Amino acid sequence: MYILLKYLVLPVALIGAAAAQADEGQWQPYQLPQLKSELKRIGITIPAEKLSDLSKHPMSAIVSLGGCSASFVSDAGLVVTNHHCAYGAIQRNATPEHNYIVDGYLAKTRAEELPGGPNTLVYVTDKVENVTARVLKNVSDTMSGKQRHDAVEKSIKALVAECESDKIYRCSVPAFHRGLEYYRIRQMMIRDVRLVYAPADMIGNFGGDIDNYEWPRQGGDYSFLRAYVGKDGRPADPSPDNVPYHSKDFLVVSAAGLKNGDPVLLAGYPGRTSRYKLPSEIRAARDSAYPAKVAELQADLDVIAAATKGNPAAAVRYASVDKSMNNVMKKTQGLLDGFARKDIAAIKDVQDAEFRAWYAKQPGMSKTLLGELDAVIAADLALSDEEFGYGVATTSDLLKSASTLYRLAREGAKPDAERESGYQQRDLTFIKARLNRLEQSYVGSVDQARFVAALQRYAKLPKSMHVNGMDALLPAVGAVPALYTKSELGDTAKRLAWLDKDSAAIAASNDAFLQLAVKLDDVTQSLKERRKELDGNLERVIPQYMQTVIAWKKSQGKPVYPDANSTLRVTYGTVSPYSPKDGITKGPFTTIEGIVEKNTGKDPFNAPQKLLDAIKAKRYGQFMDPILGTVPVDFLTSADTTGGNSGSAVMNKNGELIGLNFDSTYESITKDWYFDTAITRAIHMDIRYMLWVMAEVDHADNVLKELTIKYPAKKK
Amino acid sequence: MYILLKYLVLPVALIGAAAAQADEGQWQPYQLPQLKSELKRIGITIPAEKLSDLSKHPMSAIVSLGGCSASFVSDAGLVVTNHHCAYGAIQRNATPEHNYIVDGYLAKTRAEELPGGPNTLVYVTDKVENVTARVLKNVSDTMSGKQRHDAVEKSIKALVAECESDKIYRCSVPAFHRGLEYYRIRQMMIRDVRLVYAPADMIGNFGGDIDNYEWPRQGGDYSFLRAYVGKDGRPADPSPDNVPYHSKDFLVVSAAGLKNGDPVLLAGYPGRTSRYKLPSEIRAARDSAYPAKVAELQADLDVIAAATKGNPAAAVRYASVDKSMNNVMKKTQGLLDGFARKDIAAIKDVQDAEFRAWYAKQPGMSKTLLGELDAVIAADLALSDEEFGYGVATTSDLLKSASTLYRLAREGAKPDAERESGYQQRDLTFIKARLNRLEQSYVGSVDQARFVAALQRYAKLPKSMHVNGMDALLPAVGAVPALYTKSELGDTAKRLAWLDKDSAAIAASNDAFLQLAVKLDDVTQSLKERRKELDGNLERVIPQYMQTVIAWKKSQGKPVYPDANSTLRVTYGTVSPYSPKDGITKGPFTTIEGIVEKNTGKDPFNAPQKLLDAIKAKRYGQFMDPILGTVPVDFLTSADTTGGNSGSAVMNKNGELIGLNFDSTYESITKDWYFDTAITRAIHMDIRYMLWVMAEVDHADNVLKELTIKYPAKKK
Repeated sequence: MYILLKYLVLPVALIGAAAAQADEGQWQPYQLPQLKSELKRIGITIPAEKLSDLSKHPMSAIVSLGGCSASFVSDAGLVVTNHHCAYGAIQRNATPEHNYIVDGYLAKTRAEELPGGPNTLVYVTDKVENVTARVLKNVSDTMSGKQRHDAVEKSIKALVAECESDKIYRCSVPAFHRGLEYYRIRQMMIRDVRLVYAPADMIGNFGGDIDNYEWPRQGGDYSFLRAYVGKDGRPADPSPDNVPYHSKDFLVVSAAGLKNGDPVLLAGYPGRTSRYKLPSEIRAARDSAYPAKVAELQADLDVIAAATKGNPAAAVRYASVDKSMNNVMKKTQGLLDGFARKDIAAIKDVQDAEFRAWYAKQPGMSKTLLGELDAVIAADLALSDEEFGYGVATTSDLLKSASTLYRLAREGAKPDAERESGYQQRDLTFIKARLNRLEQSYVGSVDQARFVAALQRYAKLPKSMHVNGMDALLPAVGAVPALYTKSELGDTAKRLAWLDKDSAAIAASNDAFLQLAVKLDDVTQSLKERRKELDGNLERVIPQYMQTVIAWKKSQGKPVYPDANSTLRVTYGTVSPYSPKDGITKGPFTTIEGIVEKNTGKDPFNAPQKLLDAIKAKRYGQFMDPILGTVPVDFLTSADTTGGNSGSAVMNKNGELIGLNFDSTYESITKDWYFDTAITRAIHMDIRYMLWVMAEVDHADNVLKELTIKYPAKKK
Repeated sequence: MYILLKYLVLPVALIGAAAAQADEGQWQPYQLPQLKSELKRIGITIPAEKLSDLSKHPMSAIVSLGGCSASFVSDAGLVVTNHHCAYGAIQRNATPEHNYIVDGYLAKTRAEELPGGPNTLVYVTDKVENVTARVLKNVSDTMSGKQRHDAVEKSIKALVAECESDKIYRCSVPAFHRGLEYYRIRQMMIRDVRLVYAPADMIGNFGGDIDNYEWPRQGGDYSFLRAYVGKDGRPADPSPDNVPYHSKDFLVVSAAGLKNGDPVLLAGYPGRTSRYKLPSEIRAARDSAYPAKVAELQADLDVIAAATKGNPAAAVRYASVDKSMNNVMKKTQGLLDGFARKDIAAIKDVQDAEFRAWYAKQPGMSKTLLGELDAVIAADLALSDEEFGYGVATTSDLLKSASTLYRLAREGAKPDAERESGYQQRDLTFIKARLNRLEQSYVGSVDQARFVAALQRYAKLPKSMHVNGMDALLPAVGAVPALYTKSELGDTAKRLAWLDKDSAAIAASNDAFLQLAVKLDDVTQSLKERRKELDGNLERVIPQYMQTVIAWKKSQGKPVYPDANSTLRVTYGTVSPYSPKDGITKGPFTTIEGIVEKNTGKDPFNAPQKLLDAIKAKRYGQFMDPILGTVPVDFLTSADTTGGNSGSAVMNKNGELIGLNFDSTYESITKDWYFDTAITRAIHMDIRYMLWVMAEVDHADNVLKELTIKYPAKKK
C-alpha cells in the first residue's frame, strides 16, 4: 500500500544519473511547462501552465492528509481518498455494536458525519516559494559540516516560524536535490475532519495483505471525508459549530472511463525516492543494508508472534505494528528481488561512467568534487550502519518513550528557536498524541520479549553496526525484566505526566526506563551530532554535484526532477499492461467478476453478500465498460508513484477524476531506485467501480448527488 | 503433450448435447463445405470443397504416424512432426558416444539418415468410404447385444480383410457417433522411415514435464523424418535399396508469420473425445471414476519410486512408464480441476433438458428410446467399474505378457476371420514388437512390488469394482514372490519363444505366470463378453439417440461433428490469448527471450549454449516478428484439438504451414468433455522458430533448402 510509512524514510542520499524517460518523473508543478510537448504527445489537453499554478483548478483541489494524498470533490469540503488512508477515522468510530470496519459507514446527513480524531487532518497547500537564498544566506564554504547544518537549520526554523505566525498554517522548508534548492511550503491545516462514507473493508481492502503490492487486484480502496472549519472560514478545533470548508475548486468526476493507452495525470504527495543514488550506494543496500533490514524485521516479527501466541488481546494490540512491519518487509524484499532480477548497479555504473566522462571534458569544473562526493557517500554508508545498530538496540517502545520524554525536557529548557527540530513548541501536540496512542499497541510482556531478543541480535551484529560508546551502557539481557518491573511508563497517565517535568526531575527519577534513557542520552546525541556533521557535508557536496548532473541532462535536452520529498508532485503516464514473464500479460484492467473469482468467503477474500449479489445479477447500471462488457475495478498505468501517493487523484486528459492511486505492482518496487519503463506500473482504482458500488451496492445517493459526475454520452 | 497415449483411450460412451460454437469442432473433411460461411467469416481463403478432398492439396499432405500427426513438406517424402513424436527414432539411435537426444541429430546427406525402427511408421490416408450399410447389413433389431456386436465385428473384419488384400494398406472401419456411421479408412503404411533431423532435446522439449500442459511455453517441438519405399514406389521393409517416397503434394512453409486474431486451419488425427456424454456420465467420472484413477496412478507411481530408489538402472527402465503415467495423471487431474472450476454437469443438464423438451414435442419419436439410453449408460458405468478393478488386479507386466501369449494361442487356433480382433494375423508383428519391447521397461523386482501393492489395493476397492468371479483366483500376496521365481517370462528370448506354442502347450507349462494367465482366462473372457453384450446395446441405442440429437441441432441450423476417433479431422480457429484469471492475459505468443528468462542451466530448463548465444546476439535473421520485435517461439489458438493431434500441421488461411500443434493449456484439458470457447487454447510451435533454429543455431541448410519457404515481402 501507498500510505507513507515513517519506517520507509531512509536517510536521503544521492545521485547517479537517472535518464528522464517516458512516464518517469515526479515533477514539481512549476516544471510542467518544460514538459509541454511530452504532455501533448501522450494526449493531455489541459494546458501545462494551468497545471503548474497551485491556485488554479485542478491543482487547487489536490490536498495532503499527511502521509496520504487526496482531493476535493465538492465545494463543501468533501474529500475523496483511499480507504486505507481513512482507516484511522473509521477504526476510532467502530464499536462491537457498530463495526464500521466490517460494515462500512454512510452518513446520510451532515449531522451523521463522524469525528475523524486528532490524526485525521487535511493539508491544503496554498503557497510554494523558492527560499534557497534565504536558507543559505549564512552558509560559508569554510564551515564544518555541523556548522553548516546548524546554520541551515536555523534559517529554516526562522522561515517556518515566520510562515506559521498565522496559526492556521503548517509550514515546511524541504530541501530539493539535497539542498540545491529549498522551497517553503505553506499548508493550511484543517483539524476538524469527519468521516462521511466508507465502504465495507472487504470492499475497500479486498485481498488484504495477501494482495498488497500484487496484481491482479480488486480493491475498492476509497473513502470520503469532509473538512470542517470555523464559521470564519479558518481552521478550528473540532466543534459542532464548525461548518464545511468552502473548497471553491474541486475535481469533476468522469464516469466516461478510459481504455488501454489513454493518458492520465496524477497529482499527490510522494514520500521518498532514491533515483540519484551512486552505484556504490545501490551495492551497499543490495548486499548489506537491505538484507540486514529484512532479517531484523523478520526476527522482530517472530518474537512478537511468539510473545502474543495464545493471547488474542495482545495479538490485537500488535496487529497494526505487525502489518506495518510486514508492509516494510515486503517492500524491502521486493527491492532485493528487483535488484536480483535486474542489475541496477550495473546500469548506474554505465550512466555514472558517461556522466564522469562528460564531466571530465567540461571546462572549469572542480577537480576535487567527484572525489569529495565519493568520500562523503562512503562516510554516509558507514554512519548508516551505526544508525541501523542503534535502531536494533533500542527496540523497546518504553525506551523510546523515555528517550522522547528526556529529550523533550532537555530541549524544552532552551528558547524555542534553538531547540532541536521535532522538539519545538509546534511539535508538542504530535509528541503528546504519540505518547498517548502507544497504549493501543503496547503490551509489557511483549515489549520485554522484543527488547531482550533485540539486545541479543545487536550483540551479534558486525562491529561496523555497533554504535560508538553504546555497548557498555546497554543493560545485560538478564537485567531487562527488572527494567519493566521498575518502570511505570507502561501506564499512559503516568507516562503523560512526565511531559510536564523538567530534565532534572527526570534525571532524578527512579523509573528504570527513564534512568536508562538518561544514561544513553549522550551516546544518542553524539550519534545525532555526527549525523548533522555528515548531513552538512552532504548538503555542501551534493548540490554541487546535482548542479553538474542537471547541466549534463540539459545538454541532452532533458529536464531533471528532484527525488520525492513529500511535497506536491505531478506525474503522468498511460493506461498500460505489462509483461512480467514471456507469454504473460498483466492488466490493464480487472473487473467485478474477478471479485467473485477470488472470493473464498474468508478474510481477506470475503466480499459482502450485497456486492456479490449485484455482480451476479449483472446490475452494471451506467458503469459498464463498453470494451470489457462489465464494470472495471482497478487498472494499471505507467505513472511514476511511490509511498505517500496513496489516494492521489488520477485524472484524464481534461483533469477530471477517473481513478484513485493506491498501490504499485511487486515488480515495480525497485522504481524507488530505478524507473524501469517496461515493468513499472501503478495500481489505481477505477472511479467507475466506486460510483457503481455507491449506486448499486451501498446506495450512497446523498454522496453521489454531491459529486459532479460527467456520464458518457449515450450511444444512439 | 499431445501424443496419443493408449492409456487415455477410455471406453467410449456418449452423448449429451454439445452446441457447436465458434472454433469448436473436429470436423470430418467431407463436412467442411457445410461450414463454408464460418470458414469465410474467420478469413480462410482456401475453398472448403478443396479441403474436403483427401486426394487434393493440402489434405493429401497430411499423414499419421500412428498416435501422432504429421505432414509432408517436400516431394521426396520429407515429413515434419513433433520432436516428441520422433523421440523413439532418436532414442534408438542414441549412444553414450553419440547422444542424439542431448545433442540433436542432423543428416547432412540422405546416406546419413538413420533408421527409425519398427515403431516409426508413416500412414498415408488415401481413401475414406462410408460403409455403414455393409457393416450393418446382418444386424437385426431382435439380436442380443452380443449377437449384434459380433455381427458388426464380422462385417468389419471382412471389410478390413478386403481392403488389406493389397499388403501395403492398413485399413480400419471406425464407428462414428458410436455406430451411426462407419467409414472404411485405407492408409498406406510406410515402414521404412528414417530420422533426418532433430534439434537438441533442450530445444525440442525445453521445459520438459514441468511445462507439460502449461503456458507460457517455449518448446521447439519439431523433428524431420523421411518416408522410404521400394524402387517400385510401394512400401517395403527397411532396406538400403529403398528410395524416398514421392509425395507429390506437400505443404509450403510460410515464414510470413501470423498475428493475434489471424485464422488458422489444423489437420490431424485426434484420438478420443467425449463431447456427447450425458450428465450422469460426467458426474460418475467427476465423483468416482477419475478420483479413483488418479489415486490408483499415484499409488502405483509411489510403488515404482520406492522400488527403484537407489537403483539408477531400474529407474531408467521405468522412466518412460513413469512419464506416461504422470502425463495421464496430470491430464486426469486437469479434468477434475476443470470440473471443479466449471460445473460442466450442470451445463449439460440444461442442454439435456432442452433436448428432451424438444424431443417430447416431435411427432413419431420413440417413447422408450431415452429410457433405454439411460439404462444402457447406467450399465456401462457399472461395467466400467469392474473393468477398472480388473486393471488394478492385473498390474503386472509379466501377467499381461502371459495373458497375451495364452489368448494369442487360443485365438490362433481359429480361422483368421473368426479370431478376436487384435489377435489376427495382421496384428502379429505388433504383438511381437510389444513383447520384445518389454525388456526396455521391465525389472523383475519392481514388477513384483507393483503387483503385490496392486493386489492389496484391489482388495480394498469397493465391491462394485471387484470383477465377478475373479477374487478367488488371484494369488495371495504372500504367494507373489514365488510367481516370479517360478516364471521365465522376464527373459525376452524365453518370452518370445512361447509365441510359437499352442494353447495346450501353454496350459501344460509349469511357468507360474502362464499358469496364472490360464487360470484367469475364463474370468477375463467373461468380462470381455459382457463388454461385447453391452457395446452391442450401446451401438444399437446410441446411434438412434445421436440421430435425434443431429436432427435437433439441424433444426437450429448447426452441423454436428462426431467425437474424435483417431481419424483424420480438420479444425479451425484464430490466434488468440485467453484470460485464466481476472486481470491476467496469457499469450498469444512467447519469444526467444523467454527461453533466456526461464533458463536455469538445469534440465528441463537447460537450453544449448549455441541457442542462448544466438538469442543474446539478437541474430533474428529473417524471422523477427514485426510486432514482437523478436523471434516468436510458440503461440495459442482457439482450434479444437486433443491427444493424437501432436505434430498436426497448423496452416494459415492459404493452407501454408505456419506452425505445429503440440499441446494445450492446463485450463483446456476439460475440452475433451466440454469445449469452453473462452478458455480452450491449443499450443503450437511457430514455424518461424523452427526455421530460425535451423538457420541460426543448427545450420540445417540442406533441410532448409529442401523445404519450399515463402518469406514475407520486405518493406521498402
